[in-house]
Amino acid sequence: MPKLSRRAQDTFISPFRKMLPIAAETKKQGVKVFHLNIGQPDFDIPESAWKAFRKIDKKGIPYGQAEGQLKYRKKLCAYYRSKGHDVEPGEIVVTTGASEGILFSLLTIADAGDSVLIPQPYYANYLGFCQMAGVRINPILTSFEDGFALPLPEQIEKNISPNTRAILLCNPNNPTGKVYTLPDLKKIVPLLEKHDLFLIMDEAYREFVYDDIPYGSTLDLAGIRDRVIVIESASKRFNACGLRVGGVISRNPDIIEGVSRYARLRLSPPVIGQWLAQYSLQASEMYFDTVLQEYDQRRKLLMKKFQDYPQIRVNAPEGGFYLFMQLPILNSDHFCEWLLKDFRHQNATVMLSPGTGFYSSPGLGNNEVRIAYVLKQENLKRAADCLIEALNVYEYTDRRLLQEQPVGT
Amino acid sequence: MPKLSRRAQDTFISPFRKMLPIAAETKKQGVKVFHLNIGQPDFDIPESAWKAFRKIDKKGIPYGQAEGQLKYRKKLCAYYRSKGHDVEPGEIVVTTGASEGILFSLLTIADAGDSVLIPQPYYANYLGFCQMAGVRINPILTSFEDGFALPLPEQIEKNISPNTRAILLCNPNNPTGKVYTLPDLKKIVPLLEKHDLFLIMDEAYREFVYDDIPYGSTLDLAGIRDRVIVIESASKRFNACGLRVGGVISRNPDIIEGVSRYARLRLSPPVIGQWLAQYSLQASEMYFDTVLQEYDQRRKLLMKKFQDYPQIRVNAPEGGFYLFMQLPILNSDHFCEWLLKDFRHQNATVMLSPGTGFYSSPGLGNNEVRIAYVLKQENLKRAADCLIEALNVYEYTDRRLLQEQPVGT
Repeated sequence: MPKLSRRAQDTFISPFRKMLPIAAETKKQGVKVFHLNIGQPDFDIPESAWKAFRKIDKKGIPYGQAEGQLKYRKKLCAYYRSKGHDVEPGEIVVTTGASEGILFSLLTIADAGDSVLIPQPYYANYLGFCQMAGVRINPILTSFEDGFALPLPEQIEKNISPNTRAILLCNPNNPTGKVYTLPDLKKIVPLLEKHDLFLIMDEAYREFVYDDIPYGSTLDLAGIRDRVIVIESASKRFNACGLRVGGVISRNPDIIEGVSRYARLRLSPPVIGQWLAQYSLQASEMYFDTVLQEYDQRRKLLMKKFQDYPQIRVNAPEGGFYLFMQLPILNSDHFCEWLLKDFRHQNATVMLSPGTGFYSSPGLGNNEVRIAYVLKQENLKRAADCLIEALNVYEYTDRRLLQEQPVGT
Repeated sequence: MPKLSRRAQDTFISPFRKMLPIAAETKKQGVKVFHLNIGQPDFDIPESAWKAFRKIDKKGIPYGQAEGQLKYRKKLCAYYRSKGHDVEPGEIVVTTGASEGILFSLLTIADAGDSVLIPQPYYANYLGFCQMAGVRINPILTSFEDGFALPLPEQIEKNISPNTRAILLCNPNNPTGKVYTLPDLKKIVPLLEKHDLFLIMDEAYREFVYDDIPYGSTLDLAGIRDRVIVIESASKRFNACGLRVGGVISRNPDIIEGVSRYARLRLSPPVIGQWLAQYSLQASEMYFDTVLQEYDQRRKLLMKKFQDYPQIRVNAPEGGFYLFMQLPILNSDHFCEWLLKDFRHQNATVMLSPGTGFYSSPGLGNNEVRIAYVLKQENLKRAADCLIEALNVYEYTDRRLLQEQPVGT
């Protein structure tokens, strides 16, 4: 039998994947599993969008435009205008989720063997998309201690190689919750110019910014508009991950042409999803306010829960809906599996994302986990109690840390 | 400004793309353009599917399973069982259109630099998907004279190189209309075994086979079940290209695992499209019969129209909804552009696909065009009249051919 390709064999597998059958087994035993492991919001799309959806009266569902339906792109422009960005329909290519947008962007700006600089920890699937495109990642460490801020330009510069074609940032950041402001981003502009780099900015979580932090969109970063590629996501914006509607935005017509060539190969992004995304954009600002308020309450609930446990270290997220936490554990893969297999608290347990999945440098993330706060507050409380109780009984802890900061004090 | 990647610059652009702005200009002048250039059926999905669709009462549209919704895959299995193939849900990965299925299959079985053998003429976008995956095409010529039959095994073998990982076939064939029967396919089995190759079989058009020709699905090709990867398409099956729902089917668990790894990176295929595809599978066999009957009438209409013009050479398609024609022209790109720019018949013209787009070997396809018979019969008649009239007045014809077989005799 012929073997699979080397790249298929090497393709990144999320640690969470390996835990799925274990979680299924746990549920079979009648144990409640709180899913904090996946960024799947529990909100619905705007009610007005469902209403419009049920009235759809079409004849046939033909191919849409490769670059996305013009009607939808126009609505998207109106949305961006309301956020202060003057975007034209011709500067947008609608993609099948942000995922496809990232892949097409990588293919457009980098050849096989080129590399892209990404601060780690980073969204695990970036590694997979880079593997698909044959692109290497130059990881650059950001640290818990300084709130996962962008490294200093001189540190970033040390990690740029002659093959580096772009810096890829996620803002707000998944998994760290860091929000880059415009002044943050301006600091790397000279680097982009000096080393002739593109800036790929994953803005999938741009709706979710807390405490009126001045969110910095790269769309209008002065002087380098031609270098910027923004990835956007209707699926995340409207809490409808199954839509698979995202997009690439760029002021650089060459980028739009490059991305469009890949878009044309697959003929069109999902048409019905675009209808729903378009109807959703007609919803009022109220929709976003309500969702953000609820996330903010969840965020505060968790921060309050954990504040009395110094062995749990966590920065309040500035954006997104993830907590990236340091725990007194030595092997986050083992801990997360153990939670599912062996730990029960009031007949329940939690499923977390091990920190190891967010780093490409081996050995990192072993004392970290990511929580997605996508559960109702009552369940979130119970899930947090589970985690706290679990840390009381887990055996493979970092004893040094525990001795310094004993549990429950 | 940094340059685009080499591969983005080199990405295949369909000749039809270059003609789009010309067609738009023609329409602005009030001229009717008959679109025979794209395989976009003019049928609707089953009415019962729309009915179920309008009753959808969901809360939220979360990520679906990476491998596709289990409910939909089960319905798909029932469909295949009705066609005599015993397929299990675990042997299917639902993809975002057949396009994604082809890309994931290529990535799974071939590394960058490997090659795949494909008979030409072939569906133009295969070239693009191969470029995305860094895979080369070994083209092998099939000819008009023998109805685009599969070449003899010894001819195929000459084109197999040490880097060849698979043979890719399209059945029924786009653009040639050829249908491979099971005996046809059995002839290449020894080759697959001898050279340890996979067989990727694009069955997007499997619903469309005429004259009860015994269609050969590779799903159960004896002895090589583990080598076979079938690409399937709900979008084509239900004339709803905008759904973007396709799939990969394989009996080989390694293939399913490899394809699933890529599928997991993009999290899930479009969820709403799968709902509609699932509802559509509940439609009666009547739906397929009605569609096929109409296509058959269109096919016969065109064959009858062209039979009196010996300078138009065309084989009756055995499947699909394309005619691949030889015309007395010297440059099909020029002819197709000229039709849009300079030719009018009763204030109308036709848009065709130039044959050159279906070959990777330069110089081929210059006297060929592809027609998609996706128009109502009345319009199809007018479009055929346009084409016949155009050949009467077109100047850059192959005079030798015209002298032998003068127009209108």
